[in-house]
Amino acid sequence: MTHRIAVIPGDGIGNEVMPEGLRVLEAAAKRFDIDLTFEHFDFACCDYYAKHGKMMPDDWFEQLKDFDAIFYGAVGWPDTVPDHVSLWGSLLQFRRQFDQYINLRPCKLLPGIKSPLADRKPGDIDFYVVRENTEGEYSSVGGKMFEGTEREVVIQETVMTRHGTDRVLKFAFELAASRPRKKLTSATKSNGIAITMPWWDERVVAMAGHYPEVSVDKFHIDILTANFVMHPDWFDVVVASNLFGDILSDLGPACTGTIGVAPSANINPEGTFPSLFEPVHGSAPDIAGKGIANPIGQIWSGAMMLEHLGHKEAADAIVTAFEAVLAEADPAVLTPDIRGQGTTETLGRAIVERV
Amino acid sequence: MTHRIAVIPGDGIGNEVMPEGLRVLEAAAKRFDIDLTFEHFDFACCDYYAKHGKMMPDDWFEQLKDFDAIFYGAVGWPDTVPDHVSLWGSLLQFRRQFDQYINLRPCKLLPGIKSPLADRKPGDIDFYVVRENTEGEYSSVGGKMFEGTEREVVIQETVMTRHGTDRVLKFAFELAASRPRKKLTSATKSNGIAITMPWWDERVVAMAGHYPEVSVDKFHIDILTANFVMHPDWFDVVVASNLFGDILSDLGPACTGTIGVAPSANINPEGTFPSLFEPVHGSAPDIAGKGIANPIGQIWSGAMMLEHLGHKEAADAIVTAFEAVLAEADPAVLTPDIRGQGTTETLGRAIVERV
Ligand SMILES: CC(C)[C@H](C(=O)O)[C@@H](O)C(=O)O
Ligand SMILES: CC(C)[C@H](C(=O)O)[C@@H](O)C(=O)O
Repeated sequence: MTHRIAVIPGDGIGNEVMPEGLRVLEAAAKRFDIDLTFEHFDFACCDYYAKHGKMMPDDWFEQLKDFDAIFYGAVGWPDTVPDHVSLWGSLLQFRRQFDQYINLRPCKLLPGIKSPLADRKPGDIDFYVVRENTEGEYSSVGGKMFEGTEREVVIQETVMTRHGTDRVLKFAFELAASRPRKKLTSATKSNGIAITMPWWDERVVAMAGHYPEVSVDKFHIDILTANFVMHPDWFDVVVASNLFGDILSDLGPACTGTIGVAPSANINPEGTFPSLFEPVHGSAPDIAGKGIANPIGQIWSGAMMLEHLGHKEAADAIVTAFEAVLAEADPAVLTPDIRGQGTTETLGRAIVERV
Repeated sequence: MTHRIAVIPGDGIGNEVMPEGLRVLEAAAKRFDIDLTFEHFDFACCDYYAKHGKMMPDDWFEQLKDFDAIFYGAVGWPDTVPDHVSLWGSLLQFRRQFDQYINLRPCKLLPGIKSPLADRKPGDIDFYVVRENTEGEYSSVGGKMFEGTEREVVIQETVMTRHGTDRVLKFAFELAASRPRKKLTSATKSNGIAITMPWWDERVVAMAGHYPEVSVDKFHIDILTANFVMHPDWFDVVVASNLFGDILSDLGPACTGTIGVAPSANINPEGTFPSLFEPVHGSAPDIAGKGIANPIGQIWSGAMMLEHLGHKEAADAIVTAFEAVLAEADPAVLTPDIRGQGTTETLGRAIVERV
């Protein structure tokens, strides 16, 4: 069976890390006898937008919908296109139109990566944040009254549905049930946000009934962020609304020192539409063009894509490969962000070789 | 001039740390010749609620409104009263009815307190979180449709006003202007939360026009939480909406290791109503009754109260006193949470002596 992958390198360092991501995928495909084909798309600020004044052609949905996955670099170039235009014009379109309702991010201490937390070593921290990715606090519903006057009132509505909430909870419980610790933590704020959050808590309790083997706890988002810093070892699978998940899935990788190398999956679990895999980092205009961007975020995202496509062994091989290269810590190989003198290419090639 | 203080020790360890808080205030009052009088109120779960089935008498507003400040311990006893009942029945009432629209929390690395962050020392981190404390995401506006069915939709409205936003921004800019670094950071999420947050950004820009001496930046809340962990030294004054401020003012003290000793001020800057000063920690049922709770959160809150009442010198003397006791690190004096074998009382008395 052939997996057809749409490749969108994007802007800035997206173009530099993507080739390494693809090379590692090709190596893994060869070793594990997986059939992958790649087709490139130029949907980026400095590319399609520069030529046509919009992020994507009108028929983007038709063009992309039959792919098995989208491998995404980083889109954004604020000097020429404001972020909300580039993001709502591409990434957020994919998440919603392709119903990628799960945003999944691993938070894992890696060998050789300096964590800002004291006294933690690889193995101590290893959890997932499962974020609702299509509704909730990210809405365009609401408006202004008495605009421009002293009496101005601005209202923004959070919209949650049972459909949207139950499916993300189900995914998170399944994930927790599949892991050795079988532990799920729910992010809430039902002591302050009086309507949606108590209801979220009820949905968690209802779903927990179907997974007696999973142990469940909940924290209000304020103390939960504190616990990410104080007790990151407490967590196994953390499930959260769109906004809370957005926060936790940046904070988690920050605590493990991996915000520059963390991957992220935007998943449509049913496979009705393609899922999208992207590094957490952005296009990084400040270092773009220098060939020194760390490609591990892209490579790790590729591993998540292979796992999603049913090739867990190949995915594990990629993770093992970059962990080994990191543990070896050869300064000639590593990129400057992780205290090396190498380049995107030296680090990418070293990982290819291990795979 | 006499300052009349309403004292509400509350539940659990609130009753244990309050006496030390009061003793330190009395010592400072004596040394700096300040006239303080205290009147006690039993508005707590295990006290007033247990007798009358509600958190406070109906005329609480009348009883308290003419005090110069409220010195608050910690309220809550989830075994007998659910948190949302005790909180919306007291603390959140005070914040709203007494229009304590500023929630102010220092985030400061202290000598002798172990921070979960690696390689940071006292002096490296010293900033304030200024949180909007009365409106925004904490609202009861909204509701449910198709309740109890698969089609269930739940809506929660965030309500922001120019009145409410501008006054918290003004307070934050004034605070930043009064500090040596003169730096203000705004917490936003205008790339995802499409109505209120771009508008919040506009109000920040408008207010910044009145404070050309203050340098201003902004971060989206996701990366801002990450930066609290990675670069806590970047911050001087951070201003945020009710929800974002709630998160940041737990995360900030967590990063400095002070979540157990941090203070918090709920301020009505005009002095129309009393402001309220409370430790960040709760009533801690798990250690209540043992006499080992750390009283510094209560004592530090007392210092913030004195500063608010116009006695900055006395406030500084209290902070200097507990910093000195912490730096001395006598295990017989310190409480177990900071690696001592002392009690609430030994630590409290040592600070009284220094003052
Ligand atoms: C108890 C809760 C409602 C409260 C809040 O969220 O405001 C608390 O977290 C705080 O920060 O004082
Ligand atoms: C760019 C932004 C809209 C996006 C989000 O908040 O979803 C990003 O922070 C992410 O987490 O992918």
